[in-house]
Amino acid sequence: MTSPYDELTRRFHQLGAIKETMAVLEWDNATMMPRGGMHARSEQLTALNSLCHDLLSQGDMEDLLLDAEDDPLEEWQHRNLELMKHSWLHKTCVPDTLSNELMKKGIECEHIWREARKDNDFERYLPYQQEVLQLVREVADIKGDALDLSPYDALLDQYDPGRRSQTIDGLFSELAEALPPVIEQALNQQPPLPTQPTAHYPIPLQRELAQSMMKQLGFDFNHGRLDESLHPFCGGIPDDVRITTRYDEGDFLSSLMGICHETGHALYEQNLPRAWRRQPIGDALGMSMHESMSLFIEMQLCRSHAFFEYAAPIMLKTFGGDPALWHPDTLYQQHVRVDPSLIRVDADEVTYPCHVMIRYEIEKALIEGKYEFKDVPDIWSARMMELLNQTVKGYAHGCMQDIHWTDGAFGYFPTYTLGALMASAWRAAAEDALGPLDDKVRQGEFQPIIDWLKTTLHAAGSRYTTDELLERVTGKPLDISDYMTHIKSRYLG
Amino acid sequence: MTSPYDELTRRFHQLGAIKETMAVLEWDNATMMPRGGMHARSEQLTALNSLCHDLLSQGDMEDLLLDAEDDPLEEWQHRNLELMKHSWLHKTCVPDTLSNELMKKGIECEHIWREARKDNDFERYLPYQQEVLQLVREVADIKGDALDLSPYDALLDQYDPGRRSQTIDGLFSELAEALPPVIEQALNQQPPLPTQPTAHYPIPLQRELAQSMMKQLGFDFNHGRLDESLHPFCGGIPDDVRITTRYDEGDFLSSLMGICHETGHALYEQNLPRAWRRQPIGDALGMSMHESMSLFIEMQLCRSHAFFEYAAPIMLKTFGGDPALWHPDTLYQQHVRVDPSLIRVDADEVTYPCHVMIRYEIEKALIEGKYEFKDVPDIWSARMMELLNQTVKGYAHGCMQDIHWTDGAFGYFPTYTLGALMASAWRAAAEDALGPLDDKVRQGEFQPIIDWLKTTLHAAGSRYTTDELLERVTGKPLDISDYMTHIKSRYLG
Repeated sequence: MTSPYDELTRRFHQLGAIKETMAVLEWDNATMMPRGGMHARSEQLTALNSLCHDLLSQGDMEDLLLDAEDDPLEEWQHRNLELMKHSWLHKTCVPDTLSNELMKKGIECEHIWREARKDNDFERYLPYQQEVLQLVREVADIKGDALDLSPYDALLDQYDPGRRSQTIDGLFSELAEALPPVIEQALNQQPPLPTQPTAHYPIPLQRELAQSMMKQLGFDFNHGRLDESLHPFCGGIPDDVRITTRYDEGDFLSSLMGICHETGHALYEQNLPRAWRRQPIGDALGMSMHESMSLFIEMQLCRSHAFFEYAAPIMLKTFGGDPALWHPDTLYQQHVRVDPSLIRVDADEVTYPCHVMIRYEIEKALIEGKYEFKDVPDIWSARMMELLNQTVKGYAHGCMQDIHWTDGAFGYFPTYTLGALMASAWRAAAEDALGPLDDKVRQGEFQPIIDWLKTTLHAAGSRYTTDELLERVTGKPLDISDYMTHIKSRYLG
Repeated sequence: MTSPYDELTRRFHQLGAIKETMAVLEWDNATMMPRGGMHARSEQLTALNSLCHDLLSQGDMEDLLLDAEDDPLEEWQHRNLELMKHSWLHKTCVPDTLSNELMKKGIECEHIWREARKDNDFERYLPYQQEVLQLVREVADIKGDALDLSPYDALLDQYDPGRRSQTIDGLFSELAEALPPVIEQALNQQPPLPTQPTAHYPIPLQRELAQSMMKQLGFDFNHGRLDESLHPFCGGIPDDVRITTRYDEGDFLSSLMGICHETGHALYEQNLPRAWRRQPIGDALGMSMHESMSLFIEMQLCRSHAFFEYAAPIMLKTFGGDPALWHPDTLYQQHVRVDPSLIRVDADEVTYPCHVMIRYEIEKALIEGKYEFKDVPDIWSARMMELLNQTVKGYAHGCMQDIHWTDGAFGYFPTYTLGALMASAWRAAAEDALGPLDDKVRQGEFQPIIDWLKTTLHAAGSRYTTDELLERVTGKPLDISDYMTHIKSRYLG
């Protein structure tokens, strides 16, 4: 006789395999699929989504989940069972018809958004986005009831399990106070931007440099790829991680820094515990944790003077040209600057949280029914002026710049900034263990740092909650102190 | 209340979407996936395969299929229901344990075959192949009982529904008599092979030429792609057809002709009836029909003097070089020749059926229990001498050259030659409707020909059986006359 727990692991394994399939299809959407394949792809994803739903909502699941508690389980199996329940609740409390409707409308809205954004046409996009918002509100209400959370917290819990808006409110209000003076002081004291001579960086050379940096950072090409897409992302599955970039022949560093960022995500996936594949306990912890891994590589390691000291000679060797232009000081001054702007994805690490805070406030109020989507542009403009002293010119540079809301991903934005706070916390812990990281980065000695990440963080999978892991590794709950120390030292130092 | 028929269409739609998913994953395996992704991919495909099986073997399927007969159905819906039954019978009559065993042993045998073929080691490969043969015989017996067919016909029916070996016996014995004299005469009268100067054809230029030819032939890049893989194939799904090729910088024409072949497959898929997507009636008819579509484009249209008259100036413009080398006569004499050899995939269109006939005779006798696999090499050598006057040197150039039998695909080989016969029959019918095709090809006017294919053949999906379609379009059952006329006119003309 199969025990209830074993039957559950069998089903979650199958579910995991289907989710892997969906991840590969989603990578394909963004990198390979011709436009005309869109409708069929949405039929495929809908069918797979509904199969996942069917698997999780089999009549005996609730009994199995209850009965498994009486199985003789090891501690990690208890945690796995707890995660199964959490996942089961999230997936089954929403009726199939509603989640399929949201998926379909989301694809449609995303498509319209792409077209309308080109024409700065908010009116065309608005009804689709409002419809998606309305469906997400329904989902949030249902999940809130099932999980005993507020509607917005129920959405948040999808992306960062266990995270509550009360904590975020606290952290973000501290940041809203602490950041503006740092931004102002940095703007006053940073040297003027060195002139950047126009140069040509052929894509094949950029690709070669990127692949060699990825290898240096520990990316395993036997279990992953680098491709191109309009919006860089890290997709695929732990055994086959697929990151993407977008090349610009006039500027190689923004692509390279993006690749370092995605490599951070990729390392987390590639180093997740192999023994727990396709079980909830083997999965990544959530998007805040994931973002902390990418920002650790990008912001803590690669966007540093030490990194440019290491990389400048390699870049010179790759692209050639005047050695004076490849001085680490020059590269650092060009690429590590506070530069308030309207666009989140172009923001530096100091102003970035302001972009997130604006979106967080707005989406929380939208879900709570305090605003409708038509109200968003005005609030956006007002807050952008207050926090970053920027005048919004056109929707495409305002509330139509991001894809997230188009397919219903409300509750995702805060994870960017929580990730930044965590990345600083991990760095402080890593330095306690390994000494100053800059000394290693300067020499291109990434291996000990990556090994520390792997054994301390990656290999834990979802064995602990994010907050438990923070306590275990940093000895305290998440706060803004390490992040503030980091940006003050880098930008005011 | 959903009617039984509507419930069936819903389930087959879901099944169709999962099969589409598998097709995309299989394309990815061959073109994009890093080696380290193999194990996870096999987990994914196994999970999807088992979901398909679960869907078809639900307890109420037999009742639904019976009850649906009493639903008020239109004629095409009756045909769809008939195809559902056919598909259900094929998939569910074989016990799970047996089909899983065959899949497992097939993968193993294919793996051993790849290794053993390198070393020309028949003894190592033999026990694995004999074991697969034994399992296929069991499957054939079970399917034969369920479908009221002989065991071999039951296998044939998987690849070319409705095709029976009695028909093939008749056609192949006529070919066995008619072909050898044509081969002999062609060898005597064809001019000596013109010297082929070594030249370099850069891959980017080959790709550009291929894409432009594909467009000219009607391939819709909004619903498809061209990529590279070790073995060229046509994969993907009707709304997103993905063909592949392998480039050789020393020889562009074998890749280009391969692309024309795959484009023929692709056009069939892209033009299948959109209204019947993911229903059995909307699917392609079978492998003989599919092969006839690829051979129509490759052999009837593109491997002709008229095509080289059209294409030579384009090739010259693409690759440059001495215009004299790009004379249509030279290209034609180099690339349209009778050239008996030991290898099926390298065979010209006149000797190709001989390769197929040898395999057909052998696999039929194997399934009928007249031979065991150890007998195959001797029979192979004898028949190769009789039909093509070739001495088999080594198993790798004999009965170990093809992958088909290794994973149990007995019954597939005849579809290649049935496809060639059908392609000639379609051509004759197209000329009745449109006049000489060569006149159009010479001008690059493919559109009217493709339109004829589309409306006459592609758009029918599986509305009629292959034999019904042949009767409707050519006014007679399949015979060898049009094919013999075609090769006599091209090679003895």
